[in-house]
Amino acid sequence: MITSPDNEKLKTIRKLQQKSWRAKLGLFSAEGEDLVDAAPAAEFVLRAGEDVEPALLNAVSTLGSGTRVIGVYRQRWAEAAGDLLVYLHGVEDPGNVGTIIRSAHALADATVVLGPGCADPYSPKAVRASMGSIFARPPARAELGEIPGRPLALDAQAERDLGGFDLSPPLVLVLGSERGDIPDGLDAARIPVQADSLNVAMAATVALYEAANRMPAHA
Amino acid sequence: MITSPDNEKLKTIRKLQQKSWRAKLGLFSAEGEDLVDAAPAAEFVLRAGEDVEPALLNAVSTLGSGTRVIGVYRQRWAEAAGDLLVYLHGVEDPGNVGTIIRSAHALADATVVLGPGCADPYSPKAVRASMGSIFARPPARAELGEIPGRPLALDAQAERDLGGFDLSPPLVLVLGSERGDIPDGLDAARIPVQADSLNVAMAATVALYEAANRMPAHA
Repeated sequence: MITSPDNEKLKTIRKLQQKSWRAKLGLFSAEGEDLVDAAPAAEFVLRAGEDVEPALLNAVSTLGSGTRVIGVYRQRWAEAAGDLLVYLHGVEDPGNVGTIIRSAHALADATVVLGPGCADPYSPKAVRASMGSIFARPPARAELGEIPGRPLALDAQAERDLGGFDLSPPLVLVLGSERGDIPDGLDAARIPVQADSLNVAMAATVALYEAANRMPAHA
Repeated sequence: MITSPDNEKLKTIRKLQQKSWRAKLGLFSAEGEDLVDAAPAAEFVLRAGEDVEPALLNAVSTLGSGTRVIGVYRQRWAEAAGDLLVYLHGVEDPGNVGTIIRSAHALADATVVLGPGCADPYSPKAVRASMGSIFARPPARAELGEIPGRPLALDAQAERDLGGFDLSPPLVLVLGSERGDIPDGLDAARIPVQADSLNVAMAATVALYEAANRMPAHA
């Protein structure tokens, strides 16, 4: 039973709240039973009352309410390959990155590829938003030009609706931040909306649903 | 210029962080330029450096990073009526409630009806997630039985896919919490998924997209 805040495992968990330490160690942490249950083999897991004094675990939690369990895992990165990929450019909000990883996994078993300017998918907030999907479908890192497949940008300002596009594989759905900084010169589709208030995670979810529905291999 | 933390407006903003005070006063607060710009007439607006000392405004902000502007508004509640409604049952997470209000507005100009056990849509987190949509499309409050329209539950355990259902108006899309506590006895559709990891906000977004796409009046 860990009884000192100077314990090396607790120190590691604290470090992993910082992006620089996550990158340096190649590790990340996940909090809560749901996530830890969904995870593959951990570097280590600390459970309140079993492995560590509850107050010490709460002190290294990123949740306001504290936590009963924290696991530490090795970061994994997928290849940017497949029939259907989601490429994100400048999506800075970790909650959106995590949600899109979850949608891509749920709706299409698709890999999310992180381009420049995206939030770290292994940050605590992104991991939480992804639920188990960060383990089931780890993200990839690449520039758009390096990815095989036909890029189609989702853009609220595009003239043609998503429904009118060929979504056959291999397809790369390209999404930018809400401020809109998608690379120029791509085919672009808009999701038909009544009001211009669709965030990048919702746009990704709709496009993944539509693409998966039309792909025989994914149906 | 407000220079005292005991100012009545600052006290009101602090109170509005609590659900009981929001209900009692019939007011709510919205933080940040994007939201305040999207809002109709306010009860009052406080801008840092203009109306109030910046440190005093930050002290009543619900954002970790503080804020430049906070507006206070009267809560509005819509009628549970229309061609397409979203009924939420037991959706406790305010971020999900706000996101669904935003999706309903963006994709279908639809009203969200809050049934029992839902988070307060006027909580700071729900207001933030809704973006301007909480102003453009205020939610309604009702029990499912009081709502006109044919109910269709979205349920991951349902046998038939959403694509096979008649989505013609008047339609009420019924969604429960992720733990699943939708009222019994309703027609139920599932969203085709590759992995069972779609949260309630994503399910609502997909169903709204599908329903809006198939409704001539909404196309």
